[in-house]
Amino acid sequence: MEWRHACPRYFDDHLLYAGLPVVLSLSGGFSELGFTQIRCVLMGACNMTREIARAAIVSVGNELLFGETINSNAAWLGRALAEKGIVVSRGYTVGDARTSIQDVVWTATQFADLVIISGGLGPTTDDITRNAVADLFGRRLHRDESLLANLRDRFHAHGYGEFPETNLSQTEVPEGAIVLRNPHGTAPGLALEQGPALVVMLPGVPRELHGIFLGDLSTLLEEWLGGRMVPVHHRTLHTTGVPESRLAELIEEAMRADPPLASAMAEVSLAYLPDLRGVDLRMTASSVSSEEAEASLDRAEEELEARISRWRYRAKSGDIVESVSGALTDRGLTLAVAESCTGGLITKRLTDRPGASTSFLG
Amino acid sequence: MEWRHACPRYFDDHLLYAGLPVVLSLSGGFSELGFTQIRCVLMGACNMTREIARAAIVSVGNELLFGETINSNAAWLGRALAEKGIVVSRGYTVGDARTSIQDVVWTATQFADLVIISGGLGPTTDDITRNAVADLFGRRLHRDESLLANLRDRFHAHGYGEFPETNLSQTEVPEGAIVLRNPHGTAPGLALEQGPALVVMLPGVPRELHGIFLGDLSTLLEEWLGGRMVPVHHRTLHTTGVPESRLAELIEEAMRADPPLASAMAEVSLAYLPDLRGVDLRMTASSVSSEEAEASLDRAEEELEARISRWRYRAKSGDIVESVSGALTDRGLTLAVAESCTGGLITKRLTDRPGASTSFLG
Repeated sequence: MEWRHACPRYFDDHLLYAGLPVVLSLSGGFSELGFTQIRCVLMGACNMTREIARAAIVSVGNELLFGETINSNAAWLGRALAEKGIVVSRGYTVGDARTSIQDVVWTATQFADLVIISGGLGPTTDDITRNAVADLFGRRLHRDESLLANLRDRFHAHGYGEFPETNLSQTEVPEGAIVLRNPHGTAPGLALEQGPALVVMLPGVPRELHGIFLGDLSTLLEEWLGGRMVPVHHRTLHTTGVPESRLAELIEEAMRADPPLASAMAEVSLAYLPDLRGVDLRMTASSVSSEEAEASLDRAEEELEARISRWRYRAKSGDIVESVSGALTDRGLTLAVAESCTGGLITKRLTDRPGASTSFLG
Repeated sequence: MEWRHACPRYFDDHLLYAGLPVVLSLSGGFSELGFTQIRCVLMGACNMTREIARAAIVSVGNELLFGETINSNAAWLGRALAEKGIVVSRGYTVGDARTSIQDVVWTATQFADLVIISGGLGPTTDDITRNAVADLFGRRLHRDESLLANLRDRFHAHGYGEFPETNLSQTEVPEGAIVLRNPHGTAPGLALEQGPALVVMLPGVPRELHGIFLGDLSTLLEEWLGGRMVPVHHRTLHTTGVPESRLAELIEEAMRADPPLASAMAEVSLAYLPDLRGVDLRMTASSVSSEEAEASLDRAEEELEARISRWRYRAKSGDIVESVSGALTDRGLTLAVAESCTGGLITKRLTDRPGASTSFLG
């Protein structure tokens, strides 16, 4: 909010102040997750830096700890926040337990600008997030009459008849909370300004969480963190047939010997992601402007190409079969396979793709 | 370890001490994740309680925070630990950053008996878990010559030729660490006794993590936490056509009015898991003996049956289509569908199951 007040024209005039462009750049060192600060420079008007917004995600539910449910909500939120330009710096998973929830939410508000809590807003006794968080911040719960009216309508519309008492908890709102509409369910999202942090509670049902995030919460985040969001851009290069360690060694040696490569790579961060099929190189660039980020990725890819072309394959899906099939189809070639000891895996992998019969003989 | 020394016959004589049975029971209150203590009673020999082992899982990797990778390792570990009888009480996700890793590992050792860290043991510069953890606990790293010899053999066997320098980091072991063999890769698991806690590092590649866990780590956990593990048993009942809140209200009212139901339900913990298709009821029972746990689940299921039979369906897969198809096939009946506004979804769902054509007309 401070940023917005100190540098108001950034928001109102699309990066122009009295006809002069405002220059936004990234600074503050390159942490593991990218730059840490945005610098805003406008001669005579302002010259200030602000920390890039950092988020923490708190996932609530015994089923997550027991491993009965895979935590796809945290991954979805991580992607959605990165696309907006908010860095997730830590994730917590806790059971349906009051003190555990309070403990990690408190810890998260000590370093994060945004704390998103998912799960535990349902109507049953094991849903305790709303109470635990309201109590942690000393906020009383009150009934929201318009939520109650909506909920009654919803129940009648679905033909469920009488409105169950247990759903009443979902119409309770902590003092001062912003209610975020849930287009797909009965539990609204709730946002609390808590000191410098925004604490947001979302239901754990994925469709409801997505709906609230993409609707009311997106608008709120733009307002709340507007000038502190820096979208992150990724590009992944696929390799196979070379061990992760060998690839890393080659690239690091090349960077020492080849200044243009080194300077191109300095603009991105590089991660090695090995799996059974090979090693993916994920390059990440952050910039206030998308064009700049993409240009950095282009430079890095171009400089890397000569070093990795021997093992590189191109496939949108990340699957080398896409690359093989594409090469066969493009050249009008066909392929026959004789397999032993593979259980027919090569054939299976090749024919799993639609249209395989144009180039695969058997 | 203390438990084992105080109550040695429990391990050596299969619950017999001087011909008398040792009685193990659960006590200590029923927390959100089950009982918290095991009581061991043997007249004249011992009468002591021990806390049930608690674990924390630390997942390391920027790709998890960015949401590019869904954290399936944490879910797998949660299930595997619950099957062994170790309760996971908290999960942390951090990036490839030294201070973040050290911060959460330190926090976890303050309350957990077992801290499992996954990811960041690879050979590249973004793999820093081994160093960060060794440094946190003031343990120097030394080269393990037998790991080095194995690694060289492995590289030659795979025909990768020269051994890359960067892999050397994977042969480094913190002072006093137990090396856990990796049947599927180059990074061994590492276990450190750290005060009362056992801190374990595992590679993040799922196949390698599974291999180490099911091999050397399982043996180590039996030794280390033996008498403090209480397997958790789950049973899930599926319902559809009733909202979560209504179901909870009915069950809670019934428990107040019906003492046999209430006493059966007191032996299990009940979770309501709603999704688009309906609400699952997951019952959880913990007991030193599997028979006892299953008997508790049987009683609870039997008492609940009358309350939920109207909405309950039975399907191993959790999919109501399994239940519908089964009923049709059993009775030699067939089904035809006229759909509108569903995009053919009913037909699709019915025919997605193998063998659907025996009872589905179109």
